[in-house]
Amino acid sequence: MGLIGASLALAMKDRSLTSHISGHGRSEDNLKKAMERGVIDSYSLDPARACEGADLVVLATPVGTFKSLVKTIKGTLKKGAVVTDVGSVKGFLAHDLDDLMPEGVNYVACHPIAGSEQSGIETARADLFVGRRCVVTGTRNMDEEAFNKVWGLWSTLGSKLELMTPEEHDHIFGLVSHLPHVAAYAIMNAIADVDPGSLKYAGNGFKDITRIAASSPVIWRDICAFNSENLIKALDMLKANIEGLATYLREGDYEALEQTFKRAFELRKNIED
Amino acid sequence: MGLIGASLALAMKDRSLTSHISGHGRSEDNLKKAMERGVIDSYSLDPARACEGADLVVLATPVGTFKSLVKTIKGTLKKGAVVTDVGSVKGFLAHDLDDLMPEGVNYVACHPIAGSEQSGIETARADLFVGRRCVVTGTRNMDEEAFNKVWGLWSTLGSKLELMTPEEHDHIFGLVSHLPHVAAYAIMNAIADVDPGSLKYAGNGFKDITRIAASSPVIWRDICAFNSENLIKALDMLKANIEGLATYLREGDYEALEQTFKRAFELRKNIED
Repeated sequence: MGLIGASLALAMKDRSLTSHISGHGRSEDNLKKAMERGVIDSYSLDPARACEGADLVVLATPVGTFKSLVKTIKGTLKKGAVVTDVGSVKGFLAHDLDDLMPEGVNYVACHPIAGSEQSGIETARADLFVGRRCVVTGTRNMDEEAFNKVWGLWSTLGSKLELMTPEEHDHIFGLVSHLPHVAAYAIMNAIADVDPGSLKYAGNGFKDITRIAASSPVIWRDICAFNSENLIKALDMLKANIEGLATYLREGDYEALEQTFKRAFELRKNIED
Repeated sequence: MGLIGASLALAMKDRSLTSHISGHGRSEDNLKKAMERGVIDSYSLDPARACEGADLVVLATPVGTFKSLVKTIKGTLKKGAVVTDVGSVKGFLAHDLDDLMPEGVNYVACHPIAGSEQSGIETARADLFVGRRCVVTGTRNMDEEAFNKVWGLWSTLGSKLELMTPEEHDHIFGLVSHLPHVAAYAIMNAIADVDPGSLKYAGNGFKDITRIAASSPVIWRDICAFNSENLIKALDMLKANIEGLATYLREGDYEALEQTFKRAFELRKNIED
């Protein structure tokens, strides 16, 4: 019942795709809020009870909790149920989850690219996925019917769908999502290490570049842990680029500095805002 | 006649603070556009002619051109004229410019914090400085009357004014502005070094963090060159932070990773968007 889970529930209700949504979470206060806002129709603090009789189960918690959640609910999942998720990391986790499914239950791994630095049920909205990309990643045992069901759901909600392998997914999003998040945290901390008092002079450029440093530390700890191999590679490359720029500055090679800036400038100009 | 210079001209006209604004620039096309938009009343491709008889001269070109511009115009500046600038770097440059002023002409160094990744006269607007910070940095020979004139100008335009030394300015903005810009360029390049094809999957977080990588390479080359000492220190600290995060990932120390993220998260949460 955070930004993504609650938005998905609202979006499904908005399009009358469901007759009943059952919520689970650790905080009863939050589940009550979800009831009041009409996001869910019932809830349970016990994940197994929350999933009893469900046709579709959506994992929308920090990715580090997925496996233990599936182990807890697998005994109560009904035959023919489809399990999906909205996690920002796939890779071996997607295969592991696939392997955990009981007989007659199928898993389809998804990642709607609709997260932000915001979190919590207050930020949820029914149109969050309209026009946004949603990646579905195939796994070894993926069932065609289950795949079509999940693909159709996101399609109905207005997402631009894309199919890739869990490994392709983690390579790509390690670069365009996980690296920038970790870099944003690092930039904030580096500034505070030199002089936290300077932060009161933050302008708009600073606010843009560090906005995602306000993202949930727990969610991002889990994402980084599950995609550490790709992320370490990306961080090493970022370090090399920073070293290169510092070297140009130390040597006073401003022509090389400008060319390096220009390369980034051209790349960024080609990305639609 | 870029974002800042043209916006300042529009803002002064908007508040009837001037009877005539004379523009200078390298591109006659751009100066003609400025005439058509009513930003300036006349122009010259010769900076000395553009400044003839001016009460106030505003340097609003890349900071690397300031000294040669002042050398070119100093012969035609009238007694009692005030020279100011809108450069993003101060430090020794402010003192050097101060020393270049001819007898009877006073210099007041300014930095309105209103830049963005946008540039060009098309992006100029009269209300750009309303509610935005403007730093005035004192120099050795600063004249009180000239200081009051410039301070009063920015105040009338709605800026939140702040006085500090050129050295304090460069220390602070090396951290909250120059470091983030250079980091944004480095992030763009690092991603392209690993896999430029991944850029098509850029989401909103990525767009936020790299937005300032679309800033003018020439403007930022100059800023970095003039503030290289502070910037090298900041880049070294950023490198250390990135190395620290990569080490936590290599060692699987996710508790330390979360704590590091949390520190950045708390710092960013305290900054108003």
